[in-house]
This record gives sequence, C-alpha cells and structure tokens, in this order.
Amino acid sequence: MKNKICAIIGAGQGLGQALARRFAKGGYTLALITRSEEGGSAALIAAQEAAPELAHEYYQADATKPKELEDTLKKIILNKGDITTLIYNVRGGYAPNDPLDMSYNDVESILNLEVVGAFAAAKSVLPDMLTKSSGNIIFSSATAAFRGSGTNPLYAIGKFGLRGLSQSLAKAYGKNGVHVTHVRLDCELDVPDVRQWMGDEFEIDKTSNVDDVAETYWWTHEQPKSAWSNEIEIRPYSENWTY
Amino acid sequence: MKNKICAIIGAGQGLGQALARRFAKGGYTLALITRSEEGGSAALIAAQEAAPELAHEYYQADATKPKELEDTLKKIILNKGDITTLIYNVRGGYAPNDPLDMSYNDVESILNLEVVGAFAAAKSVLPDMLTKSSGNIIFSSATAAFRGSGTNPLYAIGKFGLRGLSQSLAKAYGKNGVHVTHVRLDCELDVPDVRQWMGDEFEIDKTSNVDDVAETYWWTHEQPKSAWSNEIEIRPYSENWTY
Amino acid sequence: MKNKICAIIGAGQGLGQALARRFAKGGYTLALITRSEEGGSAALIAAQEAAPELAHEYYQADATKPKELEDTLKKIILNKGDITTLIYNVRGGYAPNDPLDMSYNDVESILNLEVVGAFAAAKSVLPDMLTKSSGNIIFSSATAAFRGSGTNPLYAIGKFGLRGLSQSLAKAYGKNGVHVTHVRLDCELDVPDVRQWMGDEFEIDKTSNVDDVAETYWWTHEQPKSAWSNEIEIRPYSENWTY
Amino acid sequence: MKNKICAIIGAGQGLGQALARRFAKGGYTLALITRSEEGGSAALIAAQEAAPELAHEYYQADATKPKELEDTLKKIILNKGDITTLIYNVRGGYAPNDPLDMSYNDVESILNLEVVGAFAAAKSVLPDMLTKSSGNIIFSSATAAFRGSGTNPLYAIGKFGLRGLSQSLAKAYGKNGVHVTHVRLDCELDVPDVRQWMGDEFEIDKTSNVDDVAETYWWTHEQPKSAWSNEIEIRPYSENWTY
Repeated sequence: MKNKICAIIGAGQGLGQALARRFAKGGYTLALITRSEEGGSAALIAAQEAAPELAHEYYQADATKPKELEDTLKKIILNKGDITTLIYNVRGGYAPNDPLDMSYNDVESILNLEVVGAFAAAKSVLPDMLTKSSGNIIFSSATAAFRGSGTNPLYAIGKFGLRGLSQSLAKAYGKNGVHVTHVRLDCELDVPDVRQWMGDEFEIDKTSNVDDVAETYWWTHEQPKSAWSNEIEIRPYSENWTY
Repeated sequence: MKNKICAIIGAGQGLGQALARRFAKGGYTLALITRSEEGGSAALIAAQEAAPELAHEYYQADATKPKELEDTLKKIILNKGDITTLIYNVRGGYAPNDPLDMSYNDVESILNLEVVGAFAAAKSVLPDMLTKSSGNIIFSSATAAFRGSGTNPLYAIGKFGLRGLSQSLAKAYGKNGVHVTHVRLDCELDVPDVRQWMGDEFEIDKTSNVDDVAETYWWTHEQPKSAWSNEIEIRPYSENWTY
Repeated sequence: MKNKICAIIGAGQGLGQALARRFAKGGYTLALITRSEEGGSAALIAAQEAAPELAHEYYQADATKPKELEDTLKKIILNKGDITTLIYNVRGGYAPNDPLDMSYNDVESILNLEVVGAFAAAKSVLPDMLTKSSGNIIFSSATAAFRGSGTNPLYAIGKFGLRGLSQSLAKAYGKNGVHVTHVRLDCELDVPDVRQWMGDEFEIDKTSNVDDVAETYWWTHEQPKSAWSNEIEIRPYSENWTY
Repeated sequence: MKNKICAIIGAGQGLGQALARRFAKGGYTLALITRSEEGGSAALIAAQEAAPELAHEYYQADATKPKELEDTLKKIILNKGDITTLIYNVRGGYAPNDPLDMSYNDVESILNLEVVGAFAAAKSVLPDMLTKSSGNIIFSSATAAFRGSGTNPLYAIGKFGLRGLSQSLAKAYGKNGVHVTHVRLDCELDVPDVRQWMGDEFEIDKTSNVDDVAETYWWTHEQPKSAWSNEIEIRPYSENWTY
C-alpha cells in the first residue's frame, strides 16, 4: 500500500512544525516546503520524531514564485506519490505599516504569496484529487481575512484575497469530493516569533498552543463528507473579544 | 469517580438521537429532554445501545417554559450530578409562512423556544461550570441565524436571537473556561421528518448524515482550551451554494 | 391631495426628534409615538418648527404591547390617512449586565420591544403598502445586531432578532415595492442620555450628530426602487475601529 | 474659486457615464480615465451635457499599470487642480471560468486591476486629501467581494482584495477626514454589456438603472462626517435573494 502524503507549504518553526508532527502522528508521510532550509529543519525533525518509520522530506521553494512552487510539488508527487492533503501555511511579515507607505511591489508581493502561491499549490494537486474524488486542501488564514486594518494593510489585503480563492475552490470542487477549508486563526500563536515580538507583554494564556491548533486541522481533515466545515475559526478561551 | 453528564434538550429522533449515541459512546451518561416521550425514547435507546453500562435517562419538559426547563435540569443535577456538557438542540416547525400571517403569539413562541429556553438551559448549568472553570454549551442552529427569510421568517427570527445569545455567553464566560459553541447546520439532515417533507425529491447525497454531524459536536467539545471554535458550520460536500 | 404621513415609534428626545424634524422638513406630517408624553413633546416641537403648516401629532403607546401599538397605528391611519413611511426607533436601557443576571422576564421584555413590537408596527402598515406597491419601513438598529456582547447581552439579543425580522420582511415584500431598511448605528449619538452617561469622557467628535444621522434615513427613503440599500451602517469619521 | 475635481477611473459606457453625469450635475469638473478612448467618450459627452460650462476631460490610462495610472492622475492634478472625489470603477471581464482554467497570469492581472490599481489611484490623491482633512474615495465593488464563486473565481478574488484594501484605507484615514466607501453592487446593471450578455433573458425590472445607482454614490459623498457609511449595498427592489 502506498503512503498517504501530506504536503505543507510554509512548514516553519511555528505552526508548521506542529502540523508536521500531527499529520505524521496520523500516519502521513510529510513533504515539507519552506523558502529557507533553516525553517524547514524544525518541521522535518518534528515529523521524524512523531513517525520515524516514514520517509518525510524537506523541499526548498519560494511560494511567491508560482512556477517554482508547482515544479516542486510535481517533483514531490513523482518521488513520493499523490498528495492527499495539502496545507498552505504561509504568511507575510509582522511589521505594521501605514497604507501610504506600501510600494506597489509590496502589494504585488503579498498577493503573490497569499493568493497566486496558494492557487499554484492547489492547482498542482487538484487534478489528481478530482480524479480520485477525495483530498483535502487547507489554507491557514487569519481574522485579517475578515476585516481590513489601518496598521497592517498588507496582511489584510493578502488574506482577503486568499479567502476569496478558498471559497471559490470550495464551491467549484466540493461536489467532486475535495474538501477545501479556510482556517481563521483569530489568535496569536505561542511561537518563537511572537514571543520575541511581544517581549515582556507575552502571556502564554493569551496565545494558542500550536499543537492544540494542529488538532483542529487534523479534525477538519477527518470530517466525513456529508458534514464538512469550509471555514473554521480558532481562538484561545482567554480571547479579549475586541469586537 | 463521578459520571460525566451530558444533557440534551431536544433529544428527538433526528439529530438528537445521534448526539445521544455519540456522547454515550464517548463515556457520557445522557440526560435526554424532549417535550414528548415518543421523541425521547429513540434517543434513550440510542444511548443505551452505545453505552449500556451507563444510567441514561429520559425527562419530559417543555423548552418554551423556562421555569419548567430549569426545574428539570435542576432535578437532573440533583439525581445524576453536575452537567458538564449541555446541548440545546430544539427547533420550531418546518411549515413556511408569509410574514404577515404570523400572529404575535407565533413570534413570541419561537422566541421563547429559541432564545428564552436556550437561556434557561444555559443559566441552569453555568454557575456550576463557572465554579469548575470548565464545561461545554453547544447550541444547534442553522443558516437561518445568518440571513432572514421571506418564506420562513419565524425560523430566522428565532435563530438570529439564539446566535446573539450564544455570542454573548461565549464572550462573557469563555475566559472562565466555559466553551460555548453555535453550530450552523447549513444542510438538510437525513432524518425521518426531512424524508417525509421532501418526498420524491429527497436525495441522500444532498443531506447530512446525523452521525456525521454528531462527530463535529463531539470534536468541538474536545477542543483544547487554547484553540476553541465558537461558531462552526456544517454542510454536505454536495452543497449547491445558492450564495 | 392627501398629506404624506410618517409614523415614528420611539420619537424621543434623541434621534427621534431629529428624524421628526427631517421628515417634517421633507413635507411629511408626523405621527409621533412614545411611551411617555415627556419624550414625545420634544419630537413634536421639532416637527412643528420644521413644518408648522402640517398637523403633526403625538400619540402614547407602549411598544412592548403589540396589540396596543397596532391599535394606535390604526387610529393614526383612520385620523390622518395611510402611513407611507414607518420608522421603528426604540431601544432598551443602557445599563450593562452579566448574562447570568438576566431574568427570563428581562429577555422576554427586550424581545417584545425589539422584535414583537417591530413586527406589530410593520404588520399595521404593510397591507396598505402592498396594495399601493410602495412605502418605507426603517428600523433603527446597532452594531449589537451583528455581534453579541458579554456585557450588554440584552441589547444584542434584541437587535439580533430585529435584524432577522428586518431581513425577512425585506425579502418577502421588496418585490412588492416596499423598501425595508435596517440602519446599523455603529456610534454613540450626541444626545442628552449619552452626554449624561459618559460624563467627562464625552467628546463631541467621537459621536454622531442626530441631524446628520437623520439625513441618511431621509436619503435611503428617497432611493429609487431599482437601487435600494437594505442594510446601512453609520459611524463618525473618528471611529476607533476596535475590530 | 477653484473647480471641484472628480476623477473616475473606469469611466466607460455603463455606470461610468452615469457617475460622470451625476457628479457634473453636482458641480464637479470631471477627469475621466479609461483604457480605450471609445469607452471614455460616452462618459465625456454625458458630463458635457450635464454641465457644459465645466472643462471636463478624458484621459487614457491602463489601470493594471500602477505607475501609468499614478502619472495620469498627477497630470490631472497639475492641469486641473486637486482631486476631491476619486471613484475607482473598474472591473474585469464577464466570462465565467473553472478555477483550474485560470493561469497564474490571469490571477495576477485581476489583482493588478482590482487591488494594485485601486491602491495606485488612492495613493495618488490621498496625500493632498490628508493635508486638507477632506475628500472622498469610492470603490465600485460587488457581491463577489463577500462570497467566492466556483464559476467566476477571478471576479471574486479581485473584489475580495479590493474590499480588504478599502477597509484598510477607511480605518487608516477616516480619522483624518477622508471618507472611503466600498459600494457593493448586488445587481446586474442596465448597461449595454449586460443587455448583450443576457440576450432574451434580459428584464429591465431585474436590473439597476445606472442613474439610480449614481444617486447613491452622490449621496454617500455628501454624508456629513459625523455620520458616514463605509460599506454600502445596492440592489433592485426585485432582487431574487438567492441567499
């Protein structure tokens, strides 16, 4: 029997490695894709520790370059077999900025990463999923996909576009048995970047644990096809509910 | 060790009995509440078959009468112990109607059932949950909570109110460790009522299987508290996406 | 030629009197309804100053009593002629409260005011509007209709229900030429109650001027029927955008 | 006294010429920008007929090229004076397509048109508006900005991104007195393209008249700053409400 393959684009040290661990634990062979090898090695180790018997692998690709990403995914399929679960887990930088300080290139880059790259990933695996009438595509997203931001406009613009893509794919291909899910992370994650960025203000209880978050990815991927969720929200119990 | 108690209000032959089966299978002793004994017996049998060793029980109460519902829940707590999971799974009738044909009493009744009754149920279990900093309250709702209807206005009015209540409880008590969830059933269920109502137009692939739906209730109830969902949607893969 | 009649339920000293002024200025004879005569007299004076030549009148009715409200509206129609614009502009009290402190009667009362009363008002004027294929029904609502509140649950529950009603009426009767609009006041109004309630924290620039708000009511009521808005939001330029 | 200038990007034969007519009638000198001269001449004639005394002008620019659009707007400002109202009224083609048939270039192009181009337009006029603490930026959008589409994914992806941009600009610059509005056209317009596209199925009562729609653009541009709308929806009374 062939291995089940899960490809994660954006398999870094944060949520990426928790997703790698969870899906490895669930019997998947992981294909882990990041832009830099440094980010990917944490996820690779996590997968190997969770399921040492499976041939997890790391691949380097830049998700802002759709052809490069497509070629990498095709190479994975050729080497390891068809991808049955695809997780697109990228995001741009944290730095806030005034909208007027955005360059045209900034806007194009975030749209390339969040929308064109997400489409390239889906396009690379969908034909096979349609043939088999099964498969999961999960997009990591955020509350920024639901409301614009005067201080982080790039993040909002990208995630809005990603959500439009996700809904369009769900509506087009759900009936063919492909489960497309948009996960709204309405939370700060307990990851190294956030700890560093928040400094003394970091409170673990105000953040979501990445392994806890990964449980929900696993669960939605397990939903029977008569009862799917297409958009899922996640937040800690301590949510301050600013709205 | 004391038993874990799950109370289901609206534990009828449809989704109610599937929820009873799922939570019994998960180790819960079920307290099943319906207006008529006939509806409740199917759910009771489902629970007994799934976990015959547990002392599941059926109770009669009218959810449109908040005091009667509260008294019943207090009796359950006295007899069986604290309720750790409460599922409010009622709904009004299917019959469509023109808004102008609604009587004032029709509107009051649906609001009593969907909002006041839901509040009475929550109010009966919350103080104990707050003391323990844990517990689950799950409301069965529908797409009608998200958009009004020119042909089923009563259903929409009730579910809108229920959603307002659910969000308010989630925002008030989440930080105390109580997980409040609103489940939007964006689907017809494969239940006897729907089969009868749709007649020849019934297609099993266009409906959600109640046991499949119950899996999601179980799952959200299992979510670790750093990564909760507060509103969940469910629909079959075959969803026609009229919007 | 018969006068155009505009009935305002909740025609108090705040937005109510500004609406009375604006519609009187636009040529309407005002029928002003409040629970207490004190509230209504400010609106009556505003209408009389704006259009002294028209026979504006004040009526007393309790909007939580649907039959009483219906009888009052029927009396207005008998005395003054058909109501072509109806504005339902009521709201409950400001006092915040913990959801668990709500009595069943509190919940029923707010639903009576916001939903059953709104329905009684609409039901009293709709048959005539349907006959004439024209007419406007405008509901004053709030951001509370869009998201629950852990600290003002009654307000949210009522406004959610009102929005469900408003959408249902719009969908049922728009095609008959009746324009139903839900106005989301995403703002504090510059009215005596708010000035008193906020005390030293009151800043005029953070609030909406009631005459400015009334302009939007007037405008939506003027929209040609090929291009209607059914839900409108209003906020000051200074909005802090907590979400 | 200097003329008030309104720039319309996408000033074609449909809504564009109605907007030109309405704002010319309201005393604005129009700067009309389209990709092809043919489209722009209808709008120019409409403006000239509505206000022959004002020096309306047509400019050619490709909105998918942000630098070209910026240069054109700067030329307008140099020639005619500061732009006080900017309307971004572009849209991609009507042709439906399967998501998998989209090329990467298709996705990039629609994002360039709907998001990068909209940003270039706003960026060209905002600094002056901020200096003056006034000005209007209005984006023509659609229901596609609110829900994805399995059959018109490009349209949805672009409009989602546009809405994210619009909200971000509103949140960043509203407090500086610049009114940013996103108009959701939840309708087919009665324009030559739609008549041709729908053929025998065209029914005038099911569409929105472009002059009626333009009234709402005018009105929101007139809203006093204590009571703004930031997102407005427009649909005909005959709306079929598929959702």
